[in-house]
Amino acid sequence: MAEACRNVSNNVIRRLPRYLRKLDELQASGLKRVSSADLGSMLGLTPSQIRQDLNSFGGFGQQGYGYNIADLRTELAEILGMNHNYKAILVGVGNMGLALVHNFSFKDYGFTLECGFDINPEIVGKTINHIPIYADVDMAEYLSKNDINVAVLCVPRRIADVKVQELRTYGVKAIWNYTNVDIDNRENDLIIENMNFPDSLLALEYYITERYRKGHGEESST
Amino acid sequence: MAEACRNVSNNVIRRLPRYLRKLDELQASGLKRVSSADLGSMLGLTPSQIRQDLNSFGGFGQQGYGYNIADLRTELAEILGMNHNYKAILVGVGNMGLALVHNFSFKDYGFTLECGFDINPEIVGKTINHIPIYADVDMAEYLSKNDINVAVLCVPRRIADVKVQELRTYGVKAIWNYTNVDIDNRENDLIIENMNFPDSLLALEYYITERYRKGHGEESST
Repeated sequence: MAEACRNVSNNVIRRLPRYLRKLDELQASGLKRVSSADLGSMLGLTPSQIRQDLNSFGGFGQQGYGYNIADLRTELAEILGMNHNYKAILVGVGNMGLALVHNFSFKDYGFTLECGFDINPEIVGKTINHIPIYADVDMAEYLSKNDINVAVLCVPRRIADVKVQELRTYGVKAIWNYTNVDIDNRENDLIIENMNFPDSLLALEYYITERYRKGHGEESST
Repeated sequence: MAEACRNVSNNVIRRLPRYLRKLDELQASGLKRVSSADLGSMLGLTPSQIRQDLNSFGGFGQQGYGYNIADLRTELAEILGMNHNYKAILVGVGNMGLALVHNFSFKDYGFTLECGFDINPEIVGKTINHIPIYADVDMAEYLSKNDINVAVLCVPRRIADVKVQELRTYGVKAIWNYTNVDIDNRENDLIIENMNFPDSLLALEYYITERYRKGHGEESST
């Protein structure tokens, strides 16, 4: 079924992890089936939106019977590619990189974090939370010998472009980008997922401001 | 003009920070005006999408003359609410919280990070990068005496719900959520912005897997 994943909108893709999380919760609570109505109400979506989203990937469930939770969970995991055991490296092991090394379980999402690279002599050569940290100068050689699927980019913004170019040269095609820099991808050869802190905070600020305006009756001033 | 911000779609809101960043870049490079065509090509959007987005907030620019960069930047900052100097606190100063304290400049986005709260005796009472860290048990009293607009929630997931309830009780209405937990907001009283690491990585995984399938010719198997 997963082979049919074409032309699925980005908004649908972004809802899949939420479905997965909710299904995990329901499964943990011992439930076997769930209707699109119940799933929708738990996720703040309409039943028809749920059905539409899942129909993008082929048919799941049967009208009136709801979804088998275990089956749907398996299918979603396959659609997302969680069974591929992709290999990741961490590029830059400063505060943000360390937060990921200590707190984020890549394995839970089908990735192995193989190692990290940094220039800081205090951590190069050490192993932090089971992840070996190597010298930045050795990254090129490492990449030429190992097939790495994803670079988790946590370097300072001023060297983001240089590091992306190095990763590109050595065949890393996907970047989980924590640099807050827009990576130049005009050639469209990279897959880039941005964890952009400013963009997120500015969106929050907009919604705070919108509520503030409404609270002050400005919504009637137009 | 900003008062007219009603019923603007979430997708449009999420593009505004990107516009802002690009305008800052262009301004820094000395440019005075920019056409929707040029802005679009730099951002990977169509000129009509740019015009539509900006028209959601009233009229900017004049057909054929492009946008005055400084004016548009000022308007966008006002729409986002960057001039309100909102007050933020950090709830949980572990690895993630520390990464924000050290690396993220709240001021650049119109926020003041007032202080942090944690239970760790090694940091409580200290000042880290100009941010005082107070004891978690003192948060309630602090909130009852100070008008705080945003809580940056970086606590472990198991106590996320408890902390949200405490923040709610003391009138904090907006949460920048780093816990990877879906905050219960059925009452719709909170404004929540999620920095959800798993969701982001799973979306990246989907796109990697999609490219992998295409590379293996599976796109023709449907």
